[in-house]
Amino acid sequence: MELKVYTLEEISKKIENEILNSFPQEEPANLYEPIKYIMFSKGKRLRPLLSILACGMVSNEIENAIKPAVAFELLHNFTLIHDDIMDQSPTRRGRATVHKKWNEAIAILAGDLLLALAYRKISESLPNDIHSKVIQTFNDSFVEVCEGQGYDMDFEDKKDIIPVDYFKMIDKKTAKLLEKAIVAGGQIGGANEDQLSALSSVGYNLGLGFQLQDDLLDLTADNEKFGKAIGKDLVEGKKTLIILKAKEMFNDTPDINLLNKFYAENGLQGSDVIKMIEALHKNGVFDIIKKEISYYFQSIKSSLKIFEENHYKELFTQVLNFTFSRDY
Amino acid sequence: MELKVYTLEEISKKIENEILNSFPQEEPANLYEPIKYIMFSKGKRLRPLLSILACGMVSNEIENAIKPAVAFELLHNFTLIHDDIMDQSPTRRGRATVHKKWNEAIAILAGDLLLALAYRKISESLPNDIHSKVIQTFNDSFVEVCEGQGYDMDFEDKKDIIPVDYFKMIDKKTAKLLEKAIVAGGQIGGANEDQLSALSSVGYNLGLGFQLQDDLLDLTADNEKFGKAIGKDLVEGKKTLIILKAKEMFNDTPDINLLNKFYAENGLQGSDVIKMIEALHKNGVFDIIKKEISYYFQSIKSSLKIFEENHYKELFTQVLNFTFSRDY
Repeated sequence: MELKVYTLEEISKKIENEILNSFPQEEPANLYEPIKYIMFSKGKRLRPLLSILACGMVSNEIENAIKPAVAFELLHNFTLIHDDIMDQSPTRRGRATVHKKWNEAIAILAGDLLLALAYRKISESLPNDIHSKVIQTFNDSFVEVCEGQGYDMDFEDKKDIIPVDYFKMIDKKTAKLLEKAIVAGGQIGGANEDQLSALSSVGYNLGLGFQLQDDLLDLTADNEKFGKAIGKDLVEGKKTLIILKAKEMFNDTPDINLLNKFYAENGLQGSDVIKMIEALHKNGVFDIIKKEISYYFQSIKSSLKIFEENHYKELFTQVLNFTFSRDY
Repeated sequence: MELKVYTLEEISKKIENEILNSFPQEEPANLYEPIKYIMFSKGKRLRPLLSILACGMVSNEIENAIKPAVAFELLHNFTLIHDDIMDQSPTRRGRATVHKKWNEAIAILAGDLLLALAYRKISESLPNDIHSKVIQTFNDSFVEVCEGQGYDMDFEDKKDIIPVDYFKMIDKKTAKLLEKAIVAGGQIGGANEDQLSALSSVGYNLGLGFQLQDDLLDLTADNEKFGKAIGKDLVEGKKTLIILKAKEMFNDTPDINLLNKFYAENGLQGSDVIKMIEALHKNGVFDIIKKEISYYFQSIKSSLKIFEENHYKELFTQVLNFTFSRDY
């Protein structure tokens, strides 16, 4: 029997169906309503998609990877609900956040339940030996994402963040989840040690690359397409890599005053946000960040070389090219 | 080689050591400090203890059960941190709650991390086939405990709770965690279907019995030994089984006015708390609750009959007798 080869559209549909089937219950409605609300709020589904394609790259099959991949998407959305409470963010993907639409107690608990359902999803279908490996990979990403958010919260009160601290934080908070989702896909496909290590590197560089791109888009994107207000990170006082670079590059310019204000007041307001974006542009900070993003992109392409060409590797590369060229 | 037989004290020490070894890291300190704070705050460790003894009842061995049993204790403490935020409780076990001592953001995240560490703990040492079973049991308890808290939050806004709703809530919120901890111990010991079903029934009845006893002690215990203020549930307007029984039994008495006030004002204050406790006593509500608790106790003893007598069954029974006779 020949293996069915799936298109990107078919895989996306499988992901959506699996998510839909994750919440058969209606009760308690006070928890399942907010869970469905966040799960069907236009997420890009990048983590499950890349996890499934990683499995396909290794084994030419993807069926077993669907449920665990969706588990990573549930984990990701769990972090969004809880992070939004901690950061007191009013909107996400252009809509009210869960704690704003309901309340904080509901948001805490809906997040917890979403995570519980994520673990259940992994345990639904895998053979015992692979199940044990994937659970450990999932556990690692869960621990790291919490520790990363812990560092992030720490940073909000600190004025002396250096780039190496920043990387430790986004490594854990953002990169690890994508990395582990991709590694899990490989484990399900039966990847050998070299392949797993390549997938780990691909996922890690993708995670960092995406985060830098997000930070950049926060300042340069088209407001409506992006789904959030431009300069949100500046308003909230986030010490992104862009700010850390600005600290180096504004040093002998008058723009250093604006940066000092950002640090002193833990963020900027109104016209200062626009001025800062102009200053970042003028001083070449955006160009440097774009170069860094391009460096990650090249590293990924290089790590992918050890995989034989197949249909799913082609799709993986397509998604990669598409994602790194987005401007929203 | 003869198997080492452990005393209750030795098992307790093993539990404490395993908990101690669960947090080797120091960073991020903003998360590990609150985690250690709640984990070393005089918990009774009843769940891990009974989980380990269940394993011993089935197999005469307990070593493999230590880590997973501690995972259930971490899960339990995770629920305490998050529940205390949702319920806005200022104290727990005689000390400030995590969100009061630190803040809500820290408490949310420390709870999340504690849960992640719980999953990691299960995955540290079990063979793949048992690991898969125990993970599923753990997942079930995690889902149920979230759903139970969801129902509990729902109840706070409802005036027409009936006993069957109340049981559904405490079944999920309290009984399931203990039930699953005991079942997991059995799974690790290699229990057969009949034994697992008996352990499930033991755990379920223990969970309900303990909850009723907690509700009773909230109104009748010695304040200092109990570690929390007497009548806390009355002040917070919790519709415990005691309140639901009172609704039936106060019907034709003047005390119904006090109960109506409890419902209308979502709780009682000051001297009304004392008056309510007296009314519950006078109308025989406490006696009925004591009878129910004794019914659960007898059911448990009956379920235990299918297990052959061994050292660990003896310890299990000792813990049972001790716990059901506590007055604090």
